[in-house]
Formats: sequence, C-alpha cells, structure tokens
Amino acid sequence: MVVVMETGAVEPDIQGVIERLNHFGFDVHRSSGEQQIVLGAIGVKPGFDTRHISVLNGVAAVYRVTEPYKFASRAWKTENTVVQAGQHQVGGDALAIMAGPCSVESEEQIHACAELVAAQGATFLRGGAFKPRSSPYSFQGMGKEGLVMLREAADAHNLAVVTEVMEPAQLDLIAQYTDVFQIGARNMQNFSRLKEVGKTRIPVLLKRGMSATVKEWLMSAEYLLAEGNADVILCERGIRTFEDYTRNTLDLSAVPVVKAKSHLPIIVDPSHGTGIRNKVTPMARAAVAAGADGLMIEVHPDPDSAVSDGPQSLYFHQFETLMEQVRAIALVVGRS
Amino acid sequence: MVVVMETGAVEPDIQGVIERLNHFGFDVHRSSGEQQIVLGAIGVKPGFDTRHISVLNGVAAVYRVTEPYKFASRAWKTENTVVQAGQHQVGGDALAIMAGPCSVESEEQIHACAELVAAQGATFLRGGAFKPRSSPYSFQGMGKEGLVMLREAADAHNLAVVTEVMEPAQLDLIAQYTDVFQIGARNMQNFSRLKEVGKTRIPVLLKRGMSATVKEWLMSAEYLLAEGNADVILCERGIRTFEDYTRNTLDLSAVPVVKAKSHLPIIVDPSHGTGIRNKVTPMARAAVAAGADGLMIEVHPDPDSAVSDGPQSLYFHQFETLMEQVRAIALVVGRS
Amino acid sequence: MVVVMETGAVEPDIQGVIERLNHFGFDVHRSSGEQQIVLGAIGVKPGFDTRHISVLNGVAAVYRVTEPYKFASRAWKTENTVVQAGQHQVGGDALAIMAGPCSVESEEQIHACAELVAAQGATFLRGGAFKPRSSPYSFQGMGKEGLVMLREAADAHNLAVVTEVMEPAQLDLIAQYTDVFQIGARNMQNFSRLKEVGKTRIPVLLKRGMSATVKEWLMSAEYLLAEGNADVILCERGIRTFEDYTRNTLDLSAVPVVKAKSHLPIIVDPSHGTGIRNKVTPMARAAVAAGADGLMIEVHPDPDSAVSDGPQSLYFHQFETLMEQVRAIALVVGRS
Amino acid sequence: MVVVMETGAVEPDIQGVIERLNHFGFDVHRSSGEQQIVLGAIGVKPGFDTRHISVLNGVAAVYRVTEPYKFASRAWKTENTVVQAGQHQVGGDALAIMAGPCSVESEEQIHACAELVAAQGATFLRGGAFKPRSSPYSFQGMGKEGLVMLREAADAHNLAVVTEVMEPAQLDLIAQYTDVFQIGARNMQNFSRLKEVGKTRIPVLLKRGMSATVKEWLMSAEYLLAEGNADVILCERGIRTFEDYTRNTLDLSAVPVVKAKSHLPIIVDPSHGTGIRNKVTPMARAAVAAGADGLMIEVHPDPDSAVSDGPQSLYFHQFETLMEQVRAIALVVGRS
Repeated sequence: MVVVMETGAVEPDIQGVIERLNHFGFDVHRSSGEQQIVLGAIGVKPGFDTRHISVLNGVAAVYRVTEPYKFASRAWKTENTVVQAGQHQVGGDALAIMAGPCSVESEEQIHACAELVAAQGATFLRGGAFKPRSSPYSFQGMGKEGLVMLREAADAHNLAVVTEVMEPAQLDLIAQYTDVFQIGARNMQNFSRLKEVGKTRIPVLLKRGMSATVKEWLMSAEYLLAEGNADVILCERGIRTFEDYTRNTLDLSAVPVVKAKSHLPIIVDPSHGTGIRNKVTPMARAAVAAGADGLMIEVHPDPDSAVSDGPQSLYFHQFETLMEQVRAIALVVGRS
Repeated sequence: MVVVMETGAVEPDIQGVIERLNHFGFDVHRSSGEQQIVLGAIGVKPGFDTRHISVLNGVAAVYRVTEPYKFASRAWKTENTVVQAGQHQVGGDALAIMAGPCSVESEEQIHACAELVAAQGATFLRGGAFKPRSSPYSFQGMGKEGLVMLREAADAHNLAVVTEVMEPAQLDLIAQYTDVFQIGARNMQNFSRLKEVGKTRIPVLLKRGMSATVKEWLMSAEYLLAEGNADVILCERGIRTFEDYTRNTLDLSAVPVVKAKSHLPIIVDPSHGTGIRNKVTPMARAAVAAGADGLMIEVHPDPDSAVSDGPQSLYFHQFETLMEQVRAIALVVGRS
Repeated sequence: MVVVMETGAVEPDIQGVIERLNHFGFDVHRSSGEQQIVLGAIGVKPGFDTRHISVLNGVAAVYRVTEPYKFASRAWKTENTVVQAGQHQVGGDALAIMAGPCSVESEEQIHACAELVAAQGATFLRGGAFKPRSSPYSFQGMGKEGLVMLREAADAHNLAVVTEVMEPAQLDLIAQYTDVFQIGARNMQNFSRLKEVGKTRIPVLLKRGMSATVKEWLMSAEYLLAEGNADVILCERGIRTFEDYTRNTLDLSAVPVVKAKSHLPIIVDPSHGTGIRNKVTPMARAAVAAGADGLMIEVHPDPDSAVSDGPQSLYFHQFETLMEQVRAIALVVGRS
Repeated sequence: MVVVMETGAVEPDIQGVIERLNHFGFDVHRSSGEQQIVLGAIGVKPGFDTRHISVLNGVAAVYRVTEPYKFASRAWKTENTVVQAGQHQVGGDALAIMAGPCSVESEEQIHACAELVAAQGATFLRGGAFKPRSSPYSFQGMGKEGLVMLREAADAHNLAVVTEVMEPAQLDLIAQYTDVFQIGARNMQNFSRLKEVGKTRIPVLLKRGMSATVKEWLMSAEYLLAEGNADVILCERGIRTFEDYTRNTLDLSAVPVVKAKSHLPIIVDPSHGTGIRNKVTPMARAAVAAGADGLMIEVHPDPDSAVSDGPQSLYFHQFETLMEQVRAIALVVGRS
C-alpha cells in the first residue's frame, strides 16, 4: 500500500499516519519527493480497508498496490485454467459453446434443443429450471421436473449441463443433475451463496454483475476459490450504461482485461448482453474475435412461443449460421 | 401498451402484429398518423415482456403504458404509507433517524451508540450481526450474539431495531430480535429472498441496488407487497457512476421521484452513499432538504478502531452537530 | 407523439392536455383503455420538446413516436451510404482502414507511417496537426506545418487524409490538405462547429461523444446532413462507464444498432476505445466481426518516443499482424 | 508518480523501467516490499502521460501522486476564492443566486424576470442569447438583440449578467454586455475556447460536462487559470447515469468534494440537473444544505409559452417559495 501525503503535510500528521500503519502491523518505508512525502506500507492483507488511512489528517491519496484478490490472479497461477465439466472442457484450445433455451419448458422442447446444439458442435446444454425474474408476475421455472428433463436431453446427446442455482437450499438437488452451477448476474455478490457453492467441487459459471467492475468480479471468484473450488468460469453478459437502444452494453474489452489479470477462462453471453435477437449473432462473432474461451447462446425451437426470453432467443437456422461463422473466426484467432 | 409501426410498414406486417397482440389476449385499437400507424393494446399484464412485440417485423417501438408495478404505485394508494415498527414510525410528520455502528462489536460499543442515538432524538438503532463483505478475508459479523446485544441496547433506550438479513435460513432467528428487516443493496434483486421476507409481517427496509433504476427498485418493493407485506421502507444509498472521487454517487433526486411515483416512505443513507466521513454531514442535510422521510447514519464511539466501515462512521460529536442541523432543516421543509 | 394519462385522470385535465396539443398545432386522437386514457398527437415536428406536455396535470408519460432525426434515419434512405473521400470509399464492400500516428511529428515519421499503412492495404492516413488535449501542459500539435507533411506523405502513397478540425477558423486551412474532416468526441455536440462543417462538401468523420447515446450521435449527424453535407462517417471510440481497468468501454453493440437505425457507415477506433496497446488488436478483430465498415488505428514507428498517445499506438509489426487477422475475419462476414 | 512492479518482476524489466523514468528526467527511488518492488519517480510534470510507463514490461500499476491540476488545487491556494462580478460576488458569505429565463425572448419577458429576481434577493440575471440546441430544428437564440435586452434589464435592477458564449468569434461582442461568461456543459472540454476565454479578465462560470469526472472538470478550470483568468466559478448541473426517470442525476456530493480539492466557488443548477419543474425546488434546497455557494435557477413569467426549457422553468410564485426556503436553510449552514 502506498500512502501519499498532501503537499505541505506537517510532521505530526506524517508521524500520525506512520503510527497508524504500525498499529495495523505494517512496516513503513518513507521517501521524500520534491513536494510530497510518500509512505510505503508493507504487509497489507487483501481484506484491509484502505479508507482507515485515507481519512487521516494530511493524507492526499492511498493506493492498494496488490490486487485485493489472490487465487484469482495471474500472478498466483500463470498458466490458463482449463475447467473440466463432465466430459467437456472450458478454457482449452477448443471454444466451449453452451446453448439452449432460457427455460426448460417441455421434454419435446429441450430434446429438440439438445439435438440441434450437439449437431452444431456445441458441448454444453443450458436451460433454467429455477428462474430469477424481475417481476413477481412472471413465469418462475419448472423446478425439479425441469432438471430431470434437462439431464436426460443432455445425456442423450453427450452434452454437459449448465443451470442456475438460486438458493442454497436447492444446491443438493441441482447437484444431482448438473455439471456446472450457474450463478446469475444479480447474485454475483451474494456472498453467502458464493461460499456454499465454493464448498462443493462442482464447476461454477459466474456471471458478471450488471454494475460490477472486473475487479469486483474477480473478488467474487476469489470467494469461490478461497473455499477450495478451483473450477470457475467467468461469463461476461453486459453492463449497465446510459445507452438505451440496447438492454445492456456488452463489454467485450473485459475479455482481454480478464486474460491479463487472471488465469480463469472467460466466455461471453451475447443473448443477455444485447437482449435482442438480431444483435446476438454479430456480438457472438465479435466475442470470439476478441479472444473469448466460449459462448453462451439462447436458442429455442419456437422463440415466438417461449415462456421467457423468446425475443432474445435464436431460431434454429440462425444458430446454424452463427456456428458456421464462429468456426471460421475461431481459426483466425488460433482456436478450434 | 402502445406499439408504433415503422414509417411505411406494410399491411401484412401490421396484421401480423395485431394477430400476435390478440394471441396474447389483448384488445387492439388502431390509429393512423401522418406517417405512422400506432396500435394501442389493452389488457396487458404487468409481467408481460414487451420484447415479444418489439421483435416483430415492421415494429419501430413499443411503450409499456402502465408501470410494471401496481401495489407500489401512487396510483394504487394515494396517501403516504406510514410504517409502524415497534413503537416508532417511518413516513409520518417526524423524520425517522436510524443510527448506529456498521457492525455490532461488543456490549459496551452498542450500548454507547444506543445511548447517544436516543439522546439525540433518533428512534432506530442500526447494527449488523451478519455482514455481507466484498472480500472473503474481511470480518463477517458476530451472528446471534450480536443480535442479542443489539436488542438489549435498543430496549434499554426505547429504540426500534433495524438489522440486515442475508439468508432465508436466518429469518426466524433474526425475527426474534429485530423490528425491521434490512435487505442490502447487493440483494435488492434476490427475488427468492424478497418472497420469503414478503411472507412475514415484519417491516422491511429495502436498499436500492448500486445500479438499479428507480423503476427496478419499485419492482423489488412490489415483490414484497405482492406477498402481503405492506410495510416497506425504501432507502437510497448511492448509485454507481464514472465519478471516482467518491465511492458512489448519492442520487438525491430519487427522493422527489419516488415521492411522485409511490406512496412508500423513503430514507437516505449518506454513510454508504459517500463512503467518507466528512461527506456524510453535508449529504445528510441535503437529503432532509430534498424531502427524505429519514436518514440512516453510521456512528461509532471509536471509528478508528471499528472492525468495519470505520472511515465512514461519524464520531459522536459529529453526530450531535449533524442532528442539530437536521432538526433546523426539518422545520424548513415542514417536518419535525 | 403518444400521451398516456394517469390512472383516474379527471376530465378537466384530459381536456387541458387536448387543448394544449391543439395549441401546438397537433391533431389529437383519443382512445380509452381499461384503466387509462391514451392521446395520440399527430403532426409533431422533430424539434418539439415533449416536456411541454409531460409537465401538465394528469399526464403519466409522453413518448415521442418518431425518432428526432430524419435525414440520418434508415427510414429516410434505405440503402447504405457509401462515402467517397479522395479516391477511396467508406461503407462499400471493402473495409476502410484508417491508420497513422496520433500526432504528426516529423516528415520522417509520417512518411514511415504512410509507407507501412499503404503496404498493408489501408487506404486512409490519419494524423493530428491540431490536438485537443485534456491538459494545458501537453503537446498541442504542429499546426499548418503538420498538415503539409501529412498531405505529402499521403499523396506519395496514394492514401486519403483524415485529420481533426478543432476550430471554425481553421476550416479553410485544413480543407486544403484533407479529404475528411474529423470531429472529435469532445466536440460531438459543438453545434456551431457542426453547422460550419455541414456547410462544406468535404466528408466528415464524426466521433461518438464519450457519454453520448446513439440517438444523440445521430442527432449530431443530423446537424451535418441538414446543412447539406451528405458524406458523414460515424466512428465509435468508447463510452464512459464505471469500469476502471480500461480507459473507456468500447461499445461494439453500437455497430449493429447504428446499422439498423441509420444508412450511414460506421467505423471503430479501438486505440482510443481501449487506451492500451495490447487491447487494440483483439478489439479491432472484434469490431470487424461485429460488422463495422472499417477501423481507425494508431500506429507509430517508435511508440516509445511518440509525443502523444504512444502507449496506445501499435508497433509496425503489430499492425501487420492485425491486418492479417482482420483480412481473414472480413471474409467471414462477407467483406474484403 | 509511483510505479508498482508485478510480483516476481525480473531485474532486467525493473532496470528497463528505471532507465525509462530517467529518460523522462525523473529521479527514481527504489523500495522493496514483501512481494513487490515499488519505484517512486520524482519530478513528474502535470502533463505527463502515465501510460508511457504502464505499458512497460513488468509494470503492474502506475499512480500519479500529484493531481494533474495545479492552480485549481486547494494545495496551491488554501483560502476560498471569492469572484467579483460587477458589483456582486460569488463564494463569499452570502449565497449567490442567479436566475432568469433559459432564453431571452422579449423586453417584456426579461424585464419581468429581472424585477422578480431582484425583489427576491438574487444578484445575477441569467439568460441565453446564443443557444446550443441538440436539435438543428430548435430555436437558436435572439443573438445580439437579446444581449442588449439582457443588459438593460439587469442594469435597471442592479443585477450582474451571466450568459453563455458559444463561439470564440462572439467573445468581443458578448464581453460588452455580460459580467460573467458561461461555458456550457457540452463545451467543458472545448480546449481552444477555454484558452480564448482564459485570456480575458471576465469571470467565467464553467459548467460540468455531462460525463466529466470532478478531476476533468478541475483540469478544464486549470486551462482558464493557466491563461491568467483567476475568476472561475464551477457549476454542477447533473451527470449522465443509467437512471431514466430524470434527465440527469444531479451529483450533489460534488459540492463537498470540490470544496476539499479546490479553492474555487461552486454553485448548482437544479433546473438542468433534473429537467422537470417539480424537482427543482427540492434539489435547490438540497444543494444549499450540501454547502453550495449559490444556485442557478430558470424562471419564466409564463413557462407554458417559453421558447425553450419551459418545462423546467419555475413559475414566479414557485421561485418566491424556493427563495424563502433557501434563505432559511442558508442560515442553518452559516450563510446569508
């Protein structure tokens, strides 16, 4: 931690800061510039609240030198993490494509999706059985029945399953049917849930919160890693900005940023990231071109009748076109 | 719902939209402008996803005419809601001041706070026993022991208690000790928790999510109200913007906006809204001047030693000054 | 324009709104829903301030049905605009690549850039002679001398020139040396300058303001088009969000959005959009994959010695790699 | 400037950074922490682009220790600046209230405003003669004729004049009629205009850009101060966020932030900050309670007929009520 004193800070204030740093157990380095004194504090723990120092008299600024996360950092682990989920991988040479409907609605629907998804070379089937909805008046998911259908459809086509977990109480139930727990954007900072999921050994797909910085996102990954679950997949799905022609602003620069800061794989969800079907394909292509390790795409045999998120789900023929383009772009960036 | 067709939309597209609206059970009004056809859809339910229509051929824009919330709206209930919590109220003529430490740390600490708070005319004691922390390495709260101390301190000074609930599993426990459940900003859209809390008959203080619009905030209140819990208090605590000299941007215009849209009381938390002690007092004054129904303030007998949020907690003498100024401003805006 | 009355609005209020709409010269359609009255106003001009109506008693919401821009809209002109600048085009089948240094520094530097740029198949040479700088203590550009060098270097390699215009007073001077006027992000809403540039017949590259919505951006294009300058190229260069690991958040979803709303070509500037060299190549690839009509890239023979923006300028060998990848992705999306 | 090396950075990289720092003329301090090397660079000029260092191999982060502005900083001048404009002041004990119509429309209108404004104790008359409008189809101001009317009305009631300058070419003209040049939000970073205005000795009211950080705002003030114009008044008028029930989010925490960072006076414009009449009064009260040095308020004898911004202009009786409340709150915060 680096503490910059104000221009003209008086000696008693400087001593006050040094004593306070010592009080917290840090060693202190003092160096004098032309105009300002800078104090280096050594031994600062990741959880330390730097505001303890920034409120002291005479302090101009405090910078945390080390990132607040450890296990999630590239410094901790230099090689890329490859997550194994069922028989499939995320973060290896091959792109990981996860596709399927927003919600599981029927056996027929989920089997049709699984067949399409597998035929196009995707390896994960997505689908919601417990749905978080911003309106209490919306469809809330099929529950356990949906999980059973999802698993059967995936198994029939050699796909891994990824599905959202909303409540700690559902954890054991969902664990029987899924290969990957999905944690939704609205729960990225639901810390008690992160801890529970971190205690399992089932891979986790952690969506970025709508207003989370990359740093906070990696801190949430840290919660999972610190509990011992090493298999974390990050998923960018759009952040909130002032722009109102789209639902969210898909932040594709998060892909190279995460690649530099962390060893964890990162995929992109252009379906939620744009919210409108005809923006999904261009943004899916762009995500792969930016270096993402995979995609999560909503697809539905009959989007017009979907009980949820139909307007952002692709028709089957659109998904086929998308996969064709994605395969070509993957080669350009050295993926398969 | 109003559907605006594109300039030059062809008749088959217009018919397609009308059929689709009928399919969802809406009556349709057609009116022709100079350049564009406008369709009015009648009978649209709050949970309807307007994107079902916006993706259709020939549609330029869709506007939801009714707000997506009902019980939270001023149209549903024109007079202000006054929430009764223990022996005290929020939303009446008198400002409701809630104050106390970020975390309950010891009997001595919480009793000192309660004594100060009561002496200054505040009526609610706040304090956390279960703490959501963005770092897994930070203090996570005293748990049940903290709840007991909080209740005793409040009772000794005739104060009501407000404390955060992080998990549905804690609900029954916390219910024995608190007068108001607090739902934190990071859980504003934790819908399963909202439902659980909505089923109780204990008042709820619902903090605004860091990136939530006022509309989404009122939708989350709707979750509580729809389950039958009518005693909802809204709490503005700052939103996320690009400005980086402050932790969050306290959105005080939310106060008159909420007052116009809803009958629910709204208070302001300038401690989290600014994150730095010397910004708390000016923003607390400003909140009252803007018409807020109350304040939530962090105060600590020894902020420098606080286990959490010390840097944004007021010293006792600062709280006394703040209360003096707040009382004077309250009179100007017709409150006591 | 559609005016939605509040639930339970009384007849005198409704009549008041109708009279006011008539006062502004609009025809009014009245239709009654289950709970609410909706008024359609016909004949509303693009410049009308809808708040004239939204402040009236009993009004719940007002929606502008027509977009506030006309000449910039896809409805006005359905086929894509192809801008001819010198001997080169933007918006046709071939991607338009604009590259060069941030600032013109010397003959040697700009000739080296022009040679590289042309060899790699780019058709536009960029370079600043008058520089807008956020610090008064930074390099402010070579002025006219720089313009001369830029033009000579471009001519020697059959490239078109694009350079920024900061002041109306410079317009005649710069017009002698450039093929395209660039209007910077900070001046996107400098309306008097837009008018001046709109009166010329030199193509304009209009950068998106750092906090401009796509709608406002198209309104600024409208200023140019309304003055008779039909050759407008839009350039996305990143918007301001709360994310702080990058300088700006490059909004690539603006590409498909603009393509749907407008006939104007859109290119992407990943150099300013990310601000850091090693993010430029992945985001350039992503922009092309998203469907952009071209790129604007900063490149420098010796970025470490550049007088401005060196840290976001590519080395020559990086630019060569980028162009190779871009060519491959262009084929996937049907461009050359 | 403080340079933090990555954990495990190798010696050649560290030497590379040191050499580069020396190349720029900085002295370097090296200190070693538990895990990381930290380099202090001494002698860094305000205009230095820190990215020159952040792109080097082995660098984890770079922090600019000194603020990039100098003359605008509280460190440079500890006592508050009081700006003298005509016979009135901004930044002294008394609040400075600036009020008047958005646009000057007629002699009758501007005289009525001046009479009201003076009677209520305001000391500045505002009014636009040259208007920046986001639509080319909107009213663009009366020009010189408006300036003459504005000056006469102000003189008749002993008021100072504040009016916007849009173009350098208008500077000499406007200087004859105004006491304060206003620079609008959209031109806060129009650096060539800042320089021109900085060369005059007429006080300047500098509005905050819609997406400007406080730091950038102070940098723009620095442009004025560096040219020798010491009389700069800052004006907060709302920033852009995702919230859409209001036009902008008025950032009142900017008031205490600016007071801490700078010696310049700061006033608040709640008319543009909220965009809707019935939000103006609560936010004006809040601004004064937060410690602002004054207010800028739009008021009109007949807002319903105003040619611009009528919906956010107060009726005369509303302005009278506002002033009454503002006077009472001013006393609470020690102002008159």
